Amino acid sequence: MQDLDSTQITEAAIAQMANTPDPRMREIMEAAVRHLHAFARETRLTPDEWLKGIAYLTAVGQACTPYRQEFILLSDVLGLSRLVNVMHDAKGREEVGTESSLLGPFFREGAPEIPMGGSIAGTSTGPEIVIFGQVTDGQGQGVPEARIDVWQTDADGLYDLQAHDPSVMEMRGQLRCDAEGRFHFRTLKPLGYSIPMDGPVGAMVRQQNRHGFRPAHIHILVAAPGYRELVTALYFGDDPNIDSDTVFGVSASLVITESLALPDAPVPGVPSVRYDFTLSRETEGGGGRVGSDPSRLMPAG
Amino acid sequence: MQDLDSTQITEAAIAQMANTPDPRMREIMEAAVRHLHAFARETRLTPDEWLKGIAYLTAVGQACTPYRQEFILLSDVLGLSRLVNVMHDAKGREEVGTESSLLGPFFREGAPEIPMGGSIAGTSTGPEIVIFGQVTDGQGQGVPEARIDVWQTDADGLYDLQAHDPSVMEMRGQLRCDAEGRFHFRTLKPLGYSIPMDGPVGAMVRQQNRHGFRPAHIHILVAAPGYRELVTALYFGDDPNIDSDTVFGVSASLVITESLALPDAPVPGVPSVRYDFTLSRETEGGGGRVGSDPSRLMPAG
Repeated sequence: MQDLDSTQITEAAIAQMANTPDPRMREIMEAAVRHLHAFARETRLTPDEWLKGIAYLTAVGQACTPYRQEFILLSDVLGLSRLVNVMHDAKGREEVGTESSLLGPFFREGAPEIPMGGSIAGTSTGPEIVIFGQVTDGQGQGVPEARIDVWQTDADGLYDLQAHDPSVMEMRGQLRCDAEGRFHFRTLKPLGYSIPMDGPVGAMVRQQNRHGFRPAHIHILVAAPGYRELVTALYFGDDPNIDSDTVFGVSASLVITESLALPDAPVPGVPSVRYDFTLSRETEGGGGRVGSDPSRLMPAG
Repeated sequence: MQDLDSTQITEAAIAQMANTPDPRMREIMEAAVRHLHAFARETRLTPDEWLKGIAYLTAVGQACTPYRQEFILLSDVLGLSRLVNVMHDAKGREEVGTESSLLGPFFREGAPEIPMGGSIAGTSTGPEIVIFGQVTDGQGQGVPEARIDVWQTDADGLYDLQAHDPSVMEMRGQLRCDAEGRFHFRTLKPLGYSIPMDGPVGAMVRQQNRHGFRPAHIHILVAAPGYRELVTALYFGDDPNIDSDTVFGVSASLVITESLALPDAPVPGVPSVRYDFTLSRETEGGGGRVGSDPSRLMPAG
C-alpha cells in the first residue's frame, strides 16, 4: 500500500479505471478525473467548499422532475451546452447549412399538429406574427415534406409548462412542409424571459450578478429523412439582451426582425419573418441533440 | 452580438461571471468553467455523450436521501474526496499529527454515548476486539477529555443504516477520554465491504470493472477545544483489498493489526489494537470535514 500525494491520487484513480471495457467510457472518465482533480488542486479546494459543491449538485439533481431539467439549465448557464453544440456543428454541419442552437429545457415530444398556415398560439394572446420560408438542401433544392417542430414562450415570456399545468401544450406545434419544402405558420411574438430563477441554478446566477435573461426567440427543429436533424432557434434582433444571452445561444446568422414589407409574405398585413432553413446531409456520428424532453432524463422507477 | 467558436465560448462564460461579488466564488466558478470546457473540448464530447452525463448526474442527485449521499460517493470513487483530504492535511496538519482520512457517507451525528471500556456493538455479534490508546498533542502531552466518535460496519460488513431501519444506531458511539487523554472501547472486528452498488455510482464502478470494495476499517473522529478536528480511520492490514481501496482512503500510517500480546491491553484475552492519536493545533482555515451527515446536504423543503 502506497501513500499518495495530491498528484499520485489522480494516477491511482485513473489506474483503477484502466480495465473499463468500453474504450470511449475509459477515455471520457480518465479526462473527467484529470480535469476534476486539476480544478481542485488549482483552486486549493477546501473541505467546506467541496461540501458546498456536493450540496449544490444534490440540490440541482433533486430539482429535476419530468417537467424540469435543472442539470441542463446548469450546463446552459456555464456555457457547456453551447460548446457541445458548436463542436457538434463543426463535425456534422455543411458550410452552407443553417447553424444550430440549443434545444433548451422546454422541448416536449408530441406537440400538437398544425396545418399549413395554422397558429400555435392556442389560448394565448398577443401581437401576431407569421414565420415562413423554405427548407432546402445544400444545393438550394426544396426538401419535400420536411417536418418542423416549433416551440416558444407566449407574449408574456412563459412556456406552456410555466404558465399552465403540464397537461396543456400550447405555443408549440408540429407542421409538415409542402412538396417544395415551403412552410408558413402563425404565432405570437415571443417575449424574452428569465431562466427559471426559483431553483439552485437561479440562485447561482443571482450570486453572480447576472441578469439571467434570454433574448426573445423561437425554437425550431427541422427533420427529414437522409438529412442531419437541425435543432436551432431564431432570435429577435430588437431584444435588449440580444448581446448578453445568459445561455450563450445566439449566433449572428440566426437573428431575425419581423417586417410588414416582405414581398412573398403569405398573410398580408401581419408582421412576418422569412427564414429559409438549409439542411446538411446525414453523416455518421453527426446526429444527436443538445437537449431532451426532461421526462426522458429521469431515473427509472 | 458575436459569433463564438469553441474557445471564445469559454471566455464569454467567464466574462458573464466577472461581476460576482464574492471573489472566492468568482475564482472557483471561473476555474470550474475553464476545466469543464477543456474536458469537453479534449474529449470532443458529443451531444449524446453530454446527454448521458446529464442523465447520470440527475440520477445521482435523485438517489440522495437524508440517509444516503450518492454525490459524496461519486466524489469518493473518483478520488476527489481523498484529494481534498490530502490538501486539507497539507494545510492544517502538523508534521507529527495523525493523518486524516475520509469521513465517508455513513457518519451520523448524535451517536450513543458509551462509557470508558464500553462496547459500540449494540445487538450485533461477531469477533470482539478492543481499541485503546492515548490522544496527545504534538509534544506527547495527553489531551484531557478529548471526545472520540467512532463508527464502523458490523462483522458482516454493514453499517447500521444498511442493516436496520434509520431509527437504529449501532456500531457507532461517542466516548470521552480520561484526564490523560487515554481511552479504550470494545467493538467487533469490522468486515471490508462493497460500497452501495444499487445506485448510479455502483453502476459506474461495475462498468469500470472495479471490485468496489473498501478494506475493513474503523472510522474515528477526535475533537478537543483548541485542536484541529481529526477525521481519520484505521485500516486492517490483513484485508485482501488493503492495496486497492475503491475510494483511495488508506495511508500506511493508518494500518493496524489486532494482537493478543500487547503489554498494556486493558482487557486481557481479547485481541487488541493500540493506536495513539496526535492532534494538531487549531489554525485559521484548518477546519472542515471531508464529509457530512447526509441529512444536512438535502435541500430545504
